[in-house]
Amino acid sequence: MNQTSPKTILLYDCTLRDGAQGPGINFSLQDKLRLARALDDFGMDYVEAGWPGSNPKDTALYQELASHPLKHAKLVAFGSTHRVGVPAPQDPAMTALVECGAPAVALVGKSSARQAKEVLGISPQENLRLIQESVAYLVEKGKEVFLDAEHFFDGYQDAPEYALEALRCAWEAGASCLTLCDTNGGTLPYDIARIVTEVRQGLPPEARLAIHCHNDADCAVACSLAAIRTGCQLVQGAINGFGERCGNANLCSILPALALKMPGYRVGDALRIQELTPLSRLFYEVTLVRERPQQPYVGTGAFAHKAGLHVAAVAKAPSHFEQIPPEAVGNQRNILLSELSGSRNVMLKAKQLGIPLSPEDTRAVLKELKAREAQGYAFEAADASFLLLLQRLLSPQKPPFELDGFRVIIEKRGPSDKCISAATLKVKVNGQESEITAAEGEGPVDALDKCLRKTLTTFFPEVQKMRLRDFKVRIIDGSVGTAAHTRVLIDSTDGQREWSTVGLSENIIEAAWQALQDSVEYFLDKLPQNPTENH
Amino acid sequence: MNQTSPKTILLYDCTLRDGAQGPGINFSLQDKLRLARALDDFGMDYVEAGWPGSNPKDTALYQELASHPLKHAKLVAFGSTHRVGVPAPQDPAMTALVECGAPAVALVGKSSARQAKEVLGISPQENLRLIQESVAYLVEKGKEVFLDAEHFFDGYQDAPEYALEALRCAWEAGASCLTLCDTNGGTLPYDIARIVTEVRQGLPPEARLAIHCHNDADCAVACSLAAIRTGCQLVQGAINGFGERCGNANLCSILPALALKMPGYRVGDALRIQELTPLSRLFYEVTLVRERPQQPYVGTGAFAHKAGLHVAAVAKAPSHFEQIPPEAVGNQRNILLSELSGSRNVMLKAKQLGIPLSPEDTRAVLKELKAREAQGYAFEAADASFLLLLQRLLSPQKPPFELDGFRVIIEKRGPSDKCISAATLKVKVNGQESEITAAEGEGPVDALDKCLRKTLTTFFPEVQKMRLRDFKVRIIDGSVGTAAHTRVLIDSTDGQREWSTVGLSENIIEAAWQALQDSVEYFLDKLPQNPTENH
Repeated sequence: MNQTSPKTILLYDCTLRDGAQGPGINFSLQDKLRLARALDDFGMDYVEAGWPGSNPKDTALYQELASHPLKHAKLVAFGSTHRVGVPAPQDPAMTALVECGAPAVALVGKSSARQAKEVLGISPQENLRLIQESVAYLVEKGKEVFLDAEHFFDGYQDAPEYALEALRCAWEAGASCLTLCDTNGGTLPYDIARIVTEVRQGLPPEARLAIHCHNDADCAVACSLAAIRTGCQLVQGAINGFGERCGNANLCSILPALALKMPGYRVGDALRIQELTPLSRLFYEVTLVRERPQQPYVGTGAFAHKAGLHVAAVAKAPSHFEQIPPEAVGNQRNILLSELSGSRNVMLKAKQLGIPLSPEDTRAVLKELKAREAQGYAFEAADASFLLLLQRLLSPQKPPFELDGFRVIIEKRGPSDKCISAATLKVKVNGQESEITAAEGEGPVDALDKCLRKTLTTFFPEVQKMRLRDFKVRIIDGSVGTAAHTRVLIDSTDGQREWSTVGLSENIIEAAWQALQDSVEYFLDKLPQNPTENH
Repeated sequence: MNQTSPKTILLYDCTLRDGAQGPGINFSLQDKLRLARALDDFGMDYVEAGWPGSNPKDTALYQELASHPLKHAKLVAFGSTHRVGVPAPQDPAMTALVECGAPAVALVGKSSARQAKEVLGISPQENLRLIQESVAYLVEKGKEVFLDAEHFFDGYQDAPEYALEALRCAWEAGASCLTLCDTNGGTLPYDIARIVTEVRQGLPPEARLAIHCHNDADCAVACSLAAIRTGCQLVQGAINGFGERCGNANLCSILPALALKMPGYRVGDALRIQELTPLSRLFYEVTLVRERPQQPYVGTGAFAHKAGLHVAAVAKAPSHFEQIPPEAVGNQRNILLSELSGSRNVMLKAKQLGIPLSPEDTRAVLKELKAREAQGYAFEAADASFLLLLQRLLSPQKPPFELDGFRVIIEKRGPSDKCISAATLKVKVNGQESEITAAEGEGPVDALDKCLRKTLTTFFPEVQKMRLRDFKVRIIDGSVGTAAHTRVLIDSTDGQREWSTVGLSENIIEAAWQALQDSVEYFLDKLPQNPTENH
């Protein structure tokens, strides 16, 4: 009777804070809000979203999340131990943590005597006091406190007793979890396993441990799993392994191992592991970081088969060349476009959007989707365009407006003149005569948008309520012999809801037009009464 | 006296064979020759270059390498056990292996009873005979034989005794090394360690073992290291982790661990680990696979530092945030500029770009940088624009060309007409009369780019060598009361170097123009002799 029930591992995402240190990653406030909610929907247990008080964006973020809290995930605010020489209650950074409205705080502290001396310029003893006082203050203010023990593994290898002492200080001051950080990312998995085992023995058995790895030795996933097997009950990481240098431990690789491959462990019931791939892609789309086709589990090539031998074997029994069924993480096999691969995704997605599909419809939609994705469309971050695609395929109706043509002129007359954009646009509304309008705008897309509103306002005055909120462009490598395509993603809002649409063309302005057209069509379609009836 | 001398691990590269299964990788004969010699120069012990006899390219490759052999590395030919029902000496594929001139052969064989049945359609006993006969035949012909035991770990978990029996068969038939392959890439490091330990115990102590991992569980590097620590004396892998699905174990991560980080192990004296980064980049260049900035050890971002806090610590002692000195693997430190930058980032970055700054200059640059970043510029991914900013501030010179004005027209005449982009551009070159040119392009930026080249080619024919490689656009939230800005990042290349520039404007086309202008100005500035002198 050696069988014990599997241990539940808590999941802690720090993409929006530590991941933001990655090159080329710059989250806007809106990005952070959207992604925090996506992580919450996905079932993450903790979401560390930023450093309130350190900059206006993060302060506004925590205000917004305090008034509209996450549903499942506990929100964590990141900060540092209080400033040297300033008592915790007088340190404005500590006050910001207390007042930001997040129920939990991750407090970074040094656990290496050498670091305390060389970086903070204080004695090892003073450093312990900093930790103790900072933790105690926040606990007293009702916070759940994580101590992020920075440089823990390097510190431990230098001086194990001091590193342990730093942890004990935090634990005795009331911290609810001690996070062992491999800040340099250079520790190898067998050293992680040995050290976590020793730490486990050196602390009270009820002390909760977390692991936080970086990928500098290309071992962050293995290190995280090794730490879990030797005594950590919580794992920190980032979606897609975003983060400084070589990135944080990749949650998109750790979660499938825990949820699907390690019999002694499990994740919480809230976790929607079968939606991992769309979550990964959403983060790529929002950050404009380029996807990595070979990324384990979630990459477009993670279940791709090229060798003839492999394809034959896969056809006989997929498990010959696949560690898990791709659908288990919301991904799909990529050999021939087998009708079965991906239908589950389409059905789930359509159901989510309120359109239940028959198996026959699913096949038709999947076929169209595959064709469009082969061209370079991406619907992961463009729900509204996907919904319109479904409607156009399944119950085609006359659209509220149709393009006849446009011309956009962008002109800069002299080196110090303002750049001017002017557009003329011809659209047919409700199948009637074409309307032609002209407008100037801040840029070519703005000019087209203004034209379209001018035309539509007469027919649908509600169109005034919606506006474009964000606009993203990326270049898609063309297959051999074809030109590169430009993909434009537009986020729109009517003040209450937000929706996203996609356009694709060799020409950026045409791609933007398509995304704009979808955005407005989606908005009109969702109006409480369909106003096309009134005209 | 428990100290033993470190174990030397043999290094086996299979990029040119297994790596070629990766998506988008197609080596020409010339590519393979060039890369095989590069691997040889780098000090690899074994190079597996292809499958002679299976296609004319690989046959020619082995002929060429037979007449001009590698200097250090032993060349390995890849093949499969002989065909079912055809005795080894009569199987043309075996003859090709014998005659190809390579001193060593890697022979793939099944070590799973289930695989033998389901994929080859033969009994487990027949499969063992295949292995035995194939190995014995090649050994008799004077070859050093590796048995690549396909699906070894899955097979072992199904039926350990059979998997071991397959290895014993090959060993007794004279194989010089038994390669344990995790063909699916799904085995986790602790299972690899356990199984290798058991295998070690189940075989004669003199049997040599190798490890061959795939990265499907994002653990290939850790799995390879775990296998080495438990008894494998040779490691197979691919440069940059190229390979099918999620790739083969990445030698660019395994080698630095063995050479620099694992005290009990060493690599051969021939290995030039300090040339690892150039080797990695060569493989990207030849395959046209896109580099991954976050790739451990060798990526352009592997030693990049962004957070102000970190930069200050790195300046005090690099080892605080660096697992090894970047030069140890031929890479370099890279200071990113961002919201968080302080004067130290600026000084370090400028020094790196070859412009040492006085404290006074640093303050001036920092002020300008902060002002620009507040507007929405981002220089962390735009080194070339940052360099131009420094030059313009510190030693202003007449630029090689200046904008007078442009006009771009984008037109879509009818709903199914192609969208057309045409530009006219007026620039002053070398302070002379303005030149006016016109061009059409795939999109507005392409049209402007074509105009600029038309103008400049007369003055600087070298401009033909450079091209735009990537293009990214994002909208920057405006502060209250100001319009949103569009930021455009352009990556350019001249086939050898890459550089990145940034532009910012309310108008996307103007922002793109700025980034384009910086890109071309940077390129002209970096020409070996400054050609403006010639005109």
